[in-house]
Amino acid sequence: MIQLADIQAAAGRIAPYIRRTPNIRAEALAEPVTAADLSLKLECLQPTGSFKARGASNKLLTTPKEELAGGVVTASGGNHGLATARAAKLAGVPATIFVPKSITPAKVDKLKRWGATVEIIGDIWNETNLHALAFAKENGAAYFHPFADRNVIAGQGTTALELLEEIPDVDTVLVAIGGGGLISGMGVAIKALKPSVRIIGIEPEGSPTLKASLDAGRVVRLPAVTSRVATMSCAETDPGVFELVRDHVDDIVLVSDEAMLEASRWLWFEMGIAADLSGAAAIAALREKVLTFPAGHKVGALVCGAGPDALV
Amino acid sequence: MIQLADIQAAAGRIAPYIRRTPNIRAEALAEPVTAADLSLKLECLQPTGSFKARGASNKLLTTPKEELAGGVVTASGGNHGLATARAAKLAGVPATIFVPKSITPAKVDKLKRWGATVEIIGDIWNETNLHALAFAKENGAAYFHPFADRNVIAGQGTTALELLEEIPDVDTVLVAIGGGGLISGMGVAIKALKPSVRIIGIEPEGSPTLKASLDAGRVVRLPAVTSRVATMSCAETDPGVFELVRDHVDDIVLVSDEAMLEASRWLWFEMGIAADLSGAAAIAALREKVLTFPAGHKVGALVCGAGPDALV
Repeated sequence: MIQLADIQAAAGRIAPYIRRTPNIRAEALAEPVTAADLSLKLECLQPTGSFKARGASNKLLTTPKEELAGGVVTASGGNHGLATARAAKLAGVPATIFVPKSITPAKVDKLKRWGATVEIIGDIWNETNLHALAFAKENGAAYFHPFADRNVIAGQGTTALELLEEIPDVDTVLVAIGGGGLISGMGVAIKALKPSVRIIGIEPEGSPTLKASLDAGRVVRLPAVTSRVATMSCAETDPGVFELVRDHVDDIVLVSDEAMLEASRWLWFEMGIAADLSGAAAIAALREKVLTFPAGHKVGALVCGAGPDALV
Repeated sequence: MIQLADIQAAAGRIAPYIRRTPNIRAEALAEPVTAADLSLKLECLQPTGSFKARGASNKLLTTPKEELAGGVVTASGGNHGLATARAAKLAGVPATIFVPKSITPAKVDKLKRWGATVEIIGDIWNETNLHALAFAKENGAAYFHPFADRNVIAGQGTTALELLEEIPDVDTVLVAIGGGGLISGMGVAIKALKPSVRIIGIEPEGSPTLKASLDAGRVVRLPAVTSRVATMSCAETDPGVFELVRDHVDDIVLVSDEAMLEASRWLWFEMGIAADLSGAAAIAALREKVLTFPAGHKVGALVCGAGPDALV
């Protein structure tokens, strides 16, 4: 479905539209979360506040101009919606972002600030997404899927190319999972370039989409999603993404919403980083000792998104 | 009063207790604030949320052990208070932090989390500080001045050593001013290593402490401080700091409190950085066109402290 070359091509393509995010050592801490040598890649400093700017930029730049003429549409009240709105703005075409009714006014404002038309419809993402798909068909708009799209996945995977340069001797990489697009892309890049590096995903206990599918050996639809972390709550992944995760990811562990909130407070108190709950997921797995590593082990964790969660 | 060698010695001394903060290019922006090539050094990611960890660590490590036996004391409800509390915690001695009555409960909590005893007394810093000085004398505690201390200044100056390494061809460095300790130390380092680099300070319109003193050619006491940015509100600087600033700083410009608030919102929206108002001062000067630079000019700005100002 996707190869290292796709990710390398994406990196060159999107470079003018994203930032080279810093990788900072989590040292000089009051309360360390691991014996390992921990570094944090701050994807929260990307445009629109998350790694999603990578995938949306790559999708934009690989979509033929004539398909963009009718504008861009997606369903996402979260970071992918913002990144898609920004991509459309870069291209000078209209963006329509469908969001579920649960969205906060602050998120609607932010989407509008990026120039998007916001359509509030549906109780859950799948329902909202049907409206986005119908809109795309009716209006000839280009549909940007949040994760089940090879160009989106290739864009997200570019994060791994940078991380491997920044920590050449990294042993384990920790990545939060929503739909699975980010960890798929990163997994492909890491296993192609450095197969000995382990890549571990983190999902909410209340939304173990990929974990349940891996356990079952096929894509399963969760009977219920009880996590309130919207950016990590996807009830069902895509078959292509499932295969990429199955073939390139070493393990998936679960953390509670509460542990992620505590981890986001840790990031703010210790590091001055305002992460959203998914951005704190890797720290949560370490703090809760769901994942333990020995001294000297080199861990690279993604702080994948910015958010005010710890501060409000 | 202080030489490059003091700052270089401080850098080696404090290295295990601070972080090498990242320097990120402010690119891929929706609303650029300057035509210049702008980089941000994220001192907001230091322990306790600001560059103050550098100065307090250096003060701790240059204070004889016997003088620390009675504990550490200072007067500061802001970032220096936190950094001093942390320094005492590192040394395993008690910290007493005197703060003015205007302090918020959140700041008191944070000081306590760093292990400090908090004494709330006095309406303004000078008054609060008299109590801190009396406490030091009575209890044999080591007093850590926020800025009028050569070891504190040398610690803050280490920021410049990193910045010059990170942007070897930097043309202009922008630094917010409170008491003047940070810009003094950075000025000494920059003018010793690369005299052609310009260093410009930013003060609030409502607290132009150093600007007024430079204009008068001597330390002046402001008749009134109307800025509500506590970390930048010092009514009177120290004669030694005044001389360092006079001899090493190229210019000082003023920005309004409102411009700093808008700049902190810009940092959050554009960059995912949660800066306090002093941390946004350099961006404010650029956004308001108080400072303008041509394309290709390399500007390094300090985001000197973390804070929730843009998010609440």
